Amino acid sequence: MAKEIPYKIYLEENEMPDSWYNVRADMKNKPAPLLNPGTHQPMTAAELGGVFCDDLVAQELDDTTAYIPIPDEIRSFYRMYRPSPLVRAYCLEEKLQTPAKIYYKFEGNNTSGSHKLNSAIAQAYYAKKQGLKGVTTETGAGQWGTALSMACAYLGLDCKVFMVKVSYEQKPFRREVMRTYGASVTPSPSPDTAIGRRILAEHPGTTGSLGCAISEAVEAATTNEGYRYVLGSVLNQVLLHQSVIGLETKAALDKYGIKPDIIIGCAGGGSNLGGLISPFMGEKLRGEADYQIIAIEPASCPSFTRGRFAYDFADTGMICPLAKMYTLGSNFIPSPNHAGGLRYHGMSPILSQLYHDGLMEARSVEQTSVFKAAEQFARVEGILPAPESAHAIRAAIDEAIKCKETGEEKTIVFGLTGTGYFDMVAYEKFHNGEMSDYIPTDEELEASFAKLPKVD
Amino acid sequence: MAKEIPYKIYLEENEMPDSWYNVRADMKNKPAPLLNPGTHQPMTAAELGGVFCDDLVAQELDDTTAYIPIPDEIRSFYRMYRPSPLVRAYCLEEKLQTPAKIYYKFEGNNTSGSHKLNSAIAQAYYAKKQGLKGVTTETGAGQWGTALSMACAYLGLDCKVFMVKVSYEQKPFRREVMRTYGASVTPSPSPDTAIGRRILAEHPGTTGSLGCAISEAVEAATTNEGYRYVLGSVLNQVLLHQSVIGLETKAALDKYGIKPDIIIGCAGGGSNLGGLISPFMGEKLRGEADYQIIAIEPASCPSFTRGRFAYDFADTGMICPLAKMYTLGSNFIPSPNHAGGLRYHGMSPILSQLYHDGLMEARSVEQTSVFKAAEQFARVEGILPAPESAHAIRAAIDEAIKCKETGEEKTIVFGLTGTGYFDMVAYEKFHNGEMSDYIPTDEELEASFAKLPKVD
Repeated sequence: MAKEIPYKIYLEENEMPDSWYNVRADMKNKPAPLLNPGTHQPMTAAELGGVFCDDLVAQELDDTTAYIPIPDEIRSFYRMYRPSPLVRAYCLEEKLQTPAKIYYKFEGNNTSGSHKLNSAIAQAYYAKKQGLKGVTTETGAGQWGTALSMACAYLGLDCKVFMVKVSYEQKPFRREVMRTYGASVTPSPSPDTAIGRRILAEHPGTTGSLGCAISEAVEAATTNEGYRYVLGSVLNQVLLHQSVIGLETKAALDKYGIKPDIIIGCAGGGSNLGGLISPFMGEKLRGEADYQIIAIEPASCPSFTRGRFAYDFADTGMICPLAKMYTLGSNFIPSPNHAGGLRYHGMSPILSQLYHDGLMEARSVEQTSVFKAAEQFARVEGILPAPESAHAIRAAIDEAIKCKETGEEKTIVFGLTGTGYFDMVAYEKFHNGEMSDYIPTDEELEASFAKLPKVD
Repeated sequence: MAKEIPYKIYLEENEMPDSWYNVRADMKNKPAPLLNPGTHQPMTAAELGGVFCDDLVAQELDDTTAYIPIPDEIRSFYRMYRPSPLVRAYCLEEKLQTPAKIYYKFEGNNTSGSHKLNSAIAQAYYAKKQGLKGVTTETGAGQWGTALSMACAYLGLDCKVFMVKVSYEQKPFRREVMRTYGASVTPSPSPDTAIGRRILAEHPGTTGSLGCAISEAVEAATTNEGYRYVLGSVLNQVLLHQSVIGLETKAALDKYGIKPDIIIGCAGGGSNLGGLISPFMGEKLRGEADYQIIAIEPASCPSFTRGRFAYDFADTGMICPLAKMYTLGSNFIPSPNHAGGLRYHGMSPILSQLYHDGLMEARSVEQTSVFKAAEQFARVEGILPAPESAHAIRAAIDEAIKCKETGEEKTIVFGLTGTGYFDMVAYEKFHNGEMSDYIPTDEELEASFAKLPKVD
């Protein structure tokens, strides 16, 4: 008596989750605490409060409360673009002639073009609640900066974005979107901060990096009265907010009695993957169900598959707390050929711990094969995916082809984090055969690991 | 006992319309027939069949059948991105402090970024059904070309797009989206057609126009075996396909017992406006209900408000049939300052007749005020609108402000045709104060009218 499954499963607005789910509550091995970069002692709430808003500090440190209510104001904002659809990829299945059933949770139907908005509005809300003037942040590919600009415009908060210089120059359109939402956008490194000035003096021709932009944004937050810093990935609080993705996915699947076999997400800092898998991982941790969970990362920035599980700096300027995570070293910068996001050197401490404990897998994929999957997907499913999201598509297609070979009717769910409308330069390179598959050498990685901080 | 109205009214997939509605069936004064440009006699089905597919010719000429079933294959494709949401603009209402209730039908949640996909898939489907190899078309701002590329990729049809040269150069990203979907994209005027060569010889430095690209696409269709020409607006068949917008809008409103007072749409060639208003206009024509229906056009290309109701060429090359419509003259080209679409010299013959008969109103708006409305809307409703759609937003805001002044609780419905992600150059000009409000002079228009063909 299975109901016929529509192309798009939309929850009703009153079926949207009213709490976020905090997967740490169900983890036996909790993620290691952030450490003070000077003393190597766990960061206290008071220390973190200089950088982050108070409510967010509380969420960052809370590893026991399983459900944290979503404030009404945030739920109102969510209703502007959520619930997002869980799409049955009927057309892709037919194209692949696979017995697998493929679903994707599509987070791209909002102007930020990605799932980043789910945490941006939460972080902006708590800043507003604390009576702050504004927030600072960094952005690379631009999704996070756009999302934060949108959230701040909605709440009437000031928003200062440090944008990696190479993106600022190559992605003027993302910059203009942020300006439309009233944000100030500064190319990083900039002369506006002490760290920016130092980096500019040491590397005059630099086009910037995410780690450097983070350092500048943190400095701007801590030296401007009434500002705090916000970050779009990696942090525990971000995974908490992003759990709305997984909770909606699970509610939509449950509505039709569907149990996934495989859950796939792309992983840069871990915000999408962590959010998507949280409730499923919770069931797994509690022994209620089992799922094959797969993180997909770029072969050019392979934190999970080739990184070290160690304490490292979150930023190049080394002013942020140390986090224990899979890392390529805070000095690692992926090849300039690398397209899109997923270029962060580290990985969410929560996901790092889960991976370390064998609760999930990780694979790396090369970018031309990722773009091939993106194009194939676009042509049959309509949506032109972000390069980041296309990593998950690559893996989903690979799994579906395996099912074709074995005849297994597996149910595959993947996260389609966003759209690629601002990534057409990368698509153009792909069309013109100018895209390469650079992979860091072992020597490069060893040299980067040698600079990891020594923590007992 | 009114149900509480959600932010977004989504129909179920099984509530989607199974037929298009043909408003001509209820019109007492039918739109005037297309004329052969040589003989000035009504175009026969046989003559039109050289340019358009047979089924589309039948739809073009049928002014008596009220409901035409939507083939299953098209309905399957629609389910990939439809039903589109009817959104209650709660946040905009609150921002404006208006007693008006504002709804918008949002057609931008697909990769073409607009409603154009609704007719693209229909036209591509009938071409495929007829066993053709492919289709040709023109595109200006790029939405239509993108939509057609998506539809052709899905069906495995070849797609040749002539893109106005200035757009081809200034909008490389749109071009790459089309390439992602496998279309060939040629800057127009091109040396590939006789008309292109003639125009290049006469105007060596020209950056092209929509009228010229139409001429090239028609020539390419009629001189290549197995091809037909397709057009994204103006034609009766296009308004028929786009009626899915209005039918869904009406079904969503009916579900909650909502009766609109004012219906607003932007108008270039009329595809969105015609589709949105069709079922409401049908009720009005049958005397079952009354609505205030308002077309909004750019002051820089004001076909309704300053054009002539006369037979004119659809294209610059004067090879297309003559259509009776509100027109600025087929030689009219809007100022280079004009951003986005809505730059066509003529208007749908159906809408022209309805306007001529006093069944709807038209207003023109200037583009800086349009971008102000776009920015205001983006900041409170999240969605960054296409410049075209923002014309309707401008008028909806103006009407809502009037309601605030009078205290009237009118219900306003407008069409939000698409997103502005590929229009950031225009937004940048707006942010930098480089956007102007050029309006054609009476002398310019008179000079253009003087070249209208003489038809008895």
